[in-house]
Formats: sequence, structure tokens, C-alpha cells
Amino acid sequence: MDFSALPTTAFIRPDGENQAAIAALLHQVVDLLVETMTQAANRSPLPQPAEREPWAEIPEIPQDVDRLLGDVRSQLLHSMNAAHPGYIGHMDSIPTTVSVIGDMVVAALNNNMLSVEMSPMFSRLEHQVLRHIAQLFGLGASANGVLVSGGSLANLQALIVARNVVFNALKTGVPVDKHPVFFVSEVAHTSFQKAAMVMGLGTQAAIPVATNPNSQIDVADLQRKIDQAHAQGQHPFAIVATAGTTVTGSIDPISAMAAVAQQHQLWFHVDAAYGGALMFSDVQRHQLAGIELADSVTFNPQKWLYVAKTCATVMFRKFDQLHQYFRVLAPYMHDHDDCPNLGEFTVQGTRHPDILKLWLSMQHLGRQGYGAIIDHNYALAKTFTDAVKARPFLALASQPQMNLICFRAEPAGMGPHQRDTWNAQLQQWLLTQGNTFLSLPTYRGEKWLKAVLLNPFTTSDHVERLFRHIDQYFAAHQSVASMAKT
Amino acid sequence: MDFSALPTTAFIRPDGENQAAIAALLHQVVDLLVETMTQAANRSPLPQPAEREPWAEIPEIPQDVDRLLGDVRSQLLHSMNAAHPGYIGHMDSIPTTVSVIGDMVVAALNNNMLSVEMSPMFSRLEHQVLRHIAQLFGLGASANGVLVSGGSLANLQALIVARNVVFNALKTGVPVDKHPVFFVSEVAHTSFQKAAMVMGLGTQAAIPVATNPNSQIDVADLQRKIDQAHAQGQHPFAIVATAGTTVTGSIDPISAMAAVAQQHQLWFHVDAAYGGALMFSDVQRHQLAGIELADSVTFNPQKWLYVAKTCATVMFRKFDQLHQYFRVLAPYMHDHDDCPNLGEFTVQGTRHPDILKLWLSMQHLGRQGYGAIIDHNYALAKTFTDAVKARPFLALASQPQMNLICFRAEPAGMGPHQRDTWNAQLQQWLLTQGNTFLSLPTYRGEKWLKAVLLNPFTTSDHVERLFRHIDQYFAAHQSVASMAKT
Repeated sequence: MDFSALPTTAFIRPDGENQAAIAALLHQVVDLLVETMTQAANRSPLPQPAEREPWAEIPEIPQDVDRLLGDVRSQLLHSMNAAHPGYIGHMDSIPTTVSVIGDMVVAALNNNMLSVEMSPMFSRLEHQVLRHIAQLFGLGASANGVLVSGGSLANLQALIVARNVVFNALKTGVPVDKHPVFFVSEVAHTSFQKAAMVMGLGTQAAIPVATNPNSQIDVADLQRKIDQAHAQGQHPFAIVATAGTTVTGSIDPISAMAAVAQQHQLWFHVDAAYGGALMFSDVQRHQLAGIELADSVTFNPQKWLYVAKTCATVMFRKFDQLHQYFRVLAPYMHDHDDCPNLGEFTVQGTRHPDILKLWLSMQHLGRQGYGAIIDHNYALAKTFTDAVKARPFLALASQPQMNLICFRAEPAGMGPHQRDTWNAQLQQWLLTQGNTFLSLPTYRGEKWLKAVLLNPFTTSDHVERLFRHIDQYFAAHQSVASMAKT
Repeated sequence: MDFSALPTTAFIRPDGENQAAIAALLHQVVDLLVETMTQAANRSPLPQPAEREPWAEIPEIPQDVDRLLGDVRSQLLHSMNAAHPGYIGHMDSIPTTVSVIGDMVVAALNNNMLSVEMSPMFSRLEHQVLRHIAQLFGLGASANGVLVSGGSLANLQALIVARNVVFNALKTGVPVDKHPVFFVSEVAHTSFQKAAMVMGLGTQAAIPVATNPNSQIDVADLQRKIDQAHAQGQHPFAIVATAGTTVTGSIDPISAMAAVAQQHQLWFHVDAAYGGALMFSDVQRHQLAGIELADSVTFNPQKWLYVAKTCATVMFRKFDQLHQYFRVLAPYMHDHDDCPNLGEFTVQGTRHPDILKLWLSMQHLGRQGYGAIIDHNYALAKTFTDAVKARPFLALASQPQMNLICFRAEPAGMGPHQRDTWNAQLQQWLLTQGNTFLSLPTYRGEKWLKAVLLNPFTTSDHVERLFRHIDQYFAAHQSVASMAKT
């Protein structure tokens, strides 16, 4: 094939020669996007995948772009529909409009967060904005952070820095006579086990700490586990508090854990991937008291700030420590006085500029705008929780501290296995008959229903309708359950 | 602030209530994008940052979106301008048009590659497309891969899997009596030192192997280094070949290195982040002979396939090994028969669906379309190389094997330091006076000029003009250089 046979619209020509064709194509995509996304409420929150999936082979010759847009339409209609007000199953929700704008602009520019030279505007913007967010968290004048592509990388980087500081491991690695371990809630995110695996410690080096009935770390057990580790010749280097656990949205006792960390001279990390957004609400901020004592904090604007995925931060109280304990120099990058080459300060090198959609979102909604949404979510969570409590056949997994409600039906006389099946069937029924997606996590070994009330367009009407559906299902299947038992 | 006071366009409402406002806003952004990006050739390839940078504080109240678009315009005009035909300094270039479309659609959908449930279309598409790419690389019927957010993560994951397989380290970590090391070119990407650091081995565990004058690994030195490591009580577990080094685009002797790996029972990884694209060219594919013997391969479509960043793959000959040696289960995700939950198979968890822009790009350009661009780049690289060779005052760092030409001026009678300064000044002059951006890497301890001929709109006219500028500068500054020496 000749070079000149490439499709007219293959690239946005820098000389303007295909300007009309590019404009027509991009406006066509906007029409497609507007047409489908503004009708999200008319589809299922969790549509079935399209019967004909796009062909995955690598074609020999260029394919017609109109045909491709046909497939994109199908993808728009059959993907997870997080914009639907009945999509309340996960910490994934509708993105801000300016997220879409930001990512479109960033894709066209194709800059690279690896170095200042490759992203002169966005590197500087990230370095400045992250300093402000670190201030909002009370981490002090020496604090700053980086954006990373997802919360698992944020938690990983925090633990790498902690380990490198404690064992001076940057160049020569962890000394062979050391067995580094760290402590984290038994219900914390799996990224901590993964981090321990990545770091070569093995998943077992993430030592689980027992939680109370409300899914919060038991500080006495934390003390015991630290003592046990020392007794077994292990070398504790960090403890992790979670602010917003994955299944129940619980907040560990941050201040008390900070005190334990200080007592044992351990690095203190707070995984506020989800809950960090509470810093934007004047009403709820107090729930994170103690987070200002952390050595490092994970916070994901991709969750409760509605920034399109991915957008995650890891912040450090003493950002300068990364120079000595983390940075690996790239000899092909130039230094700038006002901003570091951020590729030297993250596990990634080349990185997508997630800062534009974050900056645009914070500007467009404002701190008070986010606060208003969060307060609205809390009000709805109270309505939801009250509805659970009003029904004797429903039980809460823990007392909600955020906008996550984890609950299940406990029809009389059912054993655990039967109850799991019953709730799984209820979940499917609510999805197909009630247009509401609750997720079905395994929690303390059994199946529960999880609601995450993130979507700003989910109303108390939706919640009332959901519980009417639950009542209806219970009325119809209660007797079946009893019969099955006998 | 009341919830109802949020900006009208804060979200794309799923009930369609703000459809007209959203459509107007997105069309406005398309106009802005088309207006600026189709005029990329009329700006500098590397503009100065805007004098007034966007304010970075978190505002209390919502900001007007028109004001924000004004800042976006400034960002468009002042960012790294990789679309410019004179931007030939790095492995970063103009993206495909469908990359922009793909990322816009993905942002609006806000799906999550963590699990099939959260990205039913895109998880399946990635799993299928990656299998086809693995086939194209000749990795066999059991091969597959994952997309990760950047090449550093791809190399990291390959080494983690290698280490976990060799030392059975998933749960219990690397045994304390082992000192794992791996071998990689002295001119390989810094992500390998970073990976060694992340994995807790320390940067020194990435043992550098000497290269020949053409920047390719010296296989005899590789053998020596392996023997030395054994003699010193270290435990080699992998060797890495690079197909397309960062500074000179050199290709290590892949087949010979595969034989060494087999002889010593070591994991064989090929970092074809850049050069992997040669598999798309019938003419150039032979240069990667031996890559089909790799246990794992890194390949970044974000480079020579012009997919917008980030888009990187890591492929494994035996993908199933990841089940036993890498996977960390997430108890809140459900299994599907036809596709794994990809969050369990990457270092990341939540991940951006980079597959859509990759799939769209491969469809829109076709394998032969990519082949045509690559062959065009090679022809231009030959023109460029010939121009360097035709000038006695210029020297090549190595004989180009791809579309990277690393060279410098060596005016008579200059010492290394003076020569570095002279070439740095030439680079600045070419940027400001010649509208051409060459980068200035440090290579073997000295400064060189690097050209990466990726942009499809860079022509032989551009190259001729560049060398006329170089000649002009040399004529004007040669005598100054001689004078400075005396």
C-alpha cells in the first residue's frame, strides 16, 4: 500500500489541509455522544454486551471510519452505563462534562508527563495543583504529590517510598537480613497485597489487622500484630489506615493509628482513595481528623470528585524525600528550575496528563459545588439506611459512615449458602426488573448487596422505588425460601 | 452552596434535560480543537509556556466554563506541539484522529478495566485484540497480553512475573538467601533500574551489559556478566533485549540473546516498546527475528502506531502463568467465563480503557497503512543519515537501524565540554531560527542531537532545510569555536 493511500482523516494535518473533513468527523462524534449519553437513563444500568462484538483481527487495509463509528455507537449502548441513576453498584459513576473535554484536548495534544519539556503546561499545572490539594489535606508546607494512573499505583508508590526510606533501599535493595512487613485492615483494598507482591515481599507481608463489627481497625489488635511481627523477627515499616473501605465505606481510627505509628516509628499511610473527597465538604471533613498526620496519602479524584478515570494522587508530607529515596534519573531529560521531571517521581515514566480534567473539574464545580454534591449524597444515604433499618428482614453489614450501604436480606430460617443464593437472585431481579444495579460483594465470607450513592441524579424517588421492589420480591420469595428449607 | 446551584453543564444529564447546552459546549470545544490543531505547523514545535498560567488554587465556587475554555485555548497553543513537522526530538508524535475520538468516548462512558462487569465491551475487546497482537509477534497459541498505562509499567510487570516464576515469590516473597539480578544493556531504558528499585532489589540489581560501537549488547560481555554474578553469589533470573534503544534506536542481537537465556535457563524479555512496530512492516519485520522466542515482550502502540498516550502492552508467551504467579484476587469482583477480570492481571487495578483508541487506530489505518508510514519514515531516515554522512563536521553516534538518528557536530579542535556547549547552542538555534526541535540527550557521557522521524508530515524538504540551517550555523560559528580554543 502506498503512503498516499492512507485515509484522509487518519491524522489531524498540522497544515490544515484536511480541516473540513476533520471538523465534520469530530462534530459527528459529538452528535453521537450527545445522542447516546443524554439518553443513558433509558437504557439498563448494566446492558448486555452487544451480540456482534467488533472484530478484533488486525485488518490488512484501512477500514471505513463511518463503519467504525457504527461500532462505537454499539459500544456506547452496551458498555457499563454508570451515568444511569440506577447504577449504584460500585465506586464508579458519571464523569464531569469537563472531564470529557479535558481528555479530548489531551489526546489531541499528546503531551507526556514524563518531563517538563514534553508537557510544559501540564507538568507545571500538576505540580502546583497537587501542592494545593496537599494543603487542603493539611499535610503542611513541604507536602506535594503526583498523579498516577489509578489508586493501586498510588498505594504502591507510597509503600515503596516508605520501604526505601526505612531500609535505604534505593540502590542496594532491602538488606538480606530484613523481612519487611506492614499492617493494613483485613478489609482493606487488595492493592496492598498486590503492592507487597510487586515489592517482592509476597502477599503475606501485608499483615491483616482485625476490625470491629463496624469494619474499622481494632487498634489493640494492631498493637498485638506489631509486637508479634517483632517477636517473629520481621521488620515492620508501615501501617495503613483506610478512609473509605471498598465494601462498607468505613473509616479506620486515623488519629489513634497515627499515634501507634509514631510510637513505633513506622511510616503512616492513609488510603483515602475514596473518602478523601470528604475534605471538600465543610460538614463531613471532621470524619478524616488525623489525616494531616500522615506521611503519605492516596486520594482518587476519579471517584467522588467525578473526574473521568483514571485520576489518582499520592501525596507525601515531605515530597523532597523522593529525591533521595525514590528518584531514578533519566539521562535524556533536562532539568527545569520551577518544576521537576515528573517521570522521575512516579513508578510510571510516560504518563497521560490527567491533570487537565482534574483542574477543569475543580474549577467548573468549585469546592463548594463538590461539597453540595457530597452533602446531597449523605442525605440520600440516610434515606437509604433508614429504609434498610425499617425492614426487619434486612440487615446492615456495618453502620454506614459514607454514602456506601452494604446490606442483605436475611429471610427467616436460611443458612449462609441459601441466603447467598437468595440475595444473588434478588440482585439479578432488581437489575432486570427494577433497572437498579447493586453489586454483590463477598464480605466476611458471605454475599451482600452494596449500594454506592454517588450519582447526583439518583433521587429519593429512585431509592423508594428500589425498596418497593425489594419488598415485592421478598413477599413473593419468602415462602419459597421457607419451603426450600423444610 | 445549594446542590441546585451547580453549573447547568456540570454533568451530561442522563435524562437529557441539558442536551442542548451540552451539545453546544462540546461542539464549541471541537471548533476550538480543529482551529488550533489544524494550524499546528504555524506555531513553534516547542512553544514557550504561556505567561499567565491557569490559576491552580481550588476555587470556592464554580467558574464560568467559557473562561475555562479560554485557558484551554492557551494550553492548546503553548503545550509541546508534537504535531508540528519540525517536532522530531522524541519518540512522541502526532496522534491518530481516531485516538482523539476513542478517548472522548471512553471519558464519557467512564468504564473501568478493573473487571468485566465494569467494562463488558472493552475488557473483552482488549483480551481479544491483545491475543492477535501476540500472534503477530509470533508468540504462539498460548500467548496473550494486557494494556498498561505506559512502557515502564510493561517492563516492570514482565520482570515481576519473571521473578515470581523463578523464585515462586507470589505469596512468600523472594527467599531471604537469594540476591536476584537481571541483565540489560548499558544503554537500555531507565525503567529497568526503576523496576529493580520498585521490586526491592535496588537499582544495582539491573546489571548493565556492555554494548558495541553500534549500541547493541555485546553477547560475550553478557556471558561474562552472568558468570560473574553467579561467582558473586547473586541469582540471575532474567535477561532483557532492547529493540529500539531510547537514544539511538538500536536493536540488540535478539536471537543470540535468546540462546544465552535458554542456555542459562533465564527468563527472556524483549523491550520492543519502540521497535515492536516493525512487525507491521513487511520490509522491516526481519530486524526483530528472534522476538518470537521471548517469554515476554513490551510493545507501545503509543509510539510508532501513533495511538495517543498512554497505550502500552506487555505480552506473555504463557499467559496462563499469570494465574499462578501474579494474580491477586479481588473478592468483590465476579468471574466471567470468556474473559478474566483484567485488574487481577496488571500492576494497576482501576485502569483507563486504552483499548478503544488502539482498536480504532488499527482499524482505521490497517496493518498495511502502518507499514506504509513506517517505510516512509525509513526512507526519510536514509535521506537524513546520508546528509549527516555527507558533512565531514558531523558524526553519527551509531549506525541508525530505525528512524532515529543520533549525531552531533564535531568542529575541529574542540574538547568534549566545549563540543557539548557548541551542540547545545546549535540545538537552541535550530529551534528558534529553524522551527525544528531536536532533543539533546546525554549519550556515553556527552551531548548529542537526536532526531526521531516519526511525524508522517515531515518531508525531505524539511530535512533539507534543517541541514541548510546546520551548514549556516556551522559556517558562522566554526571560526568562533577555533578562536575560543586558541
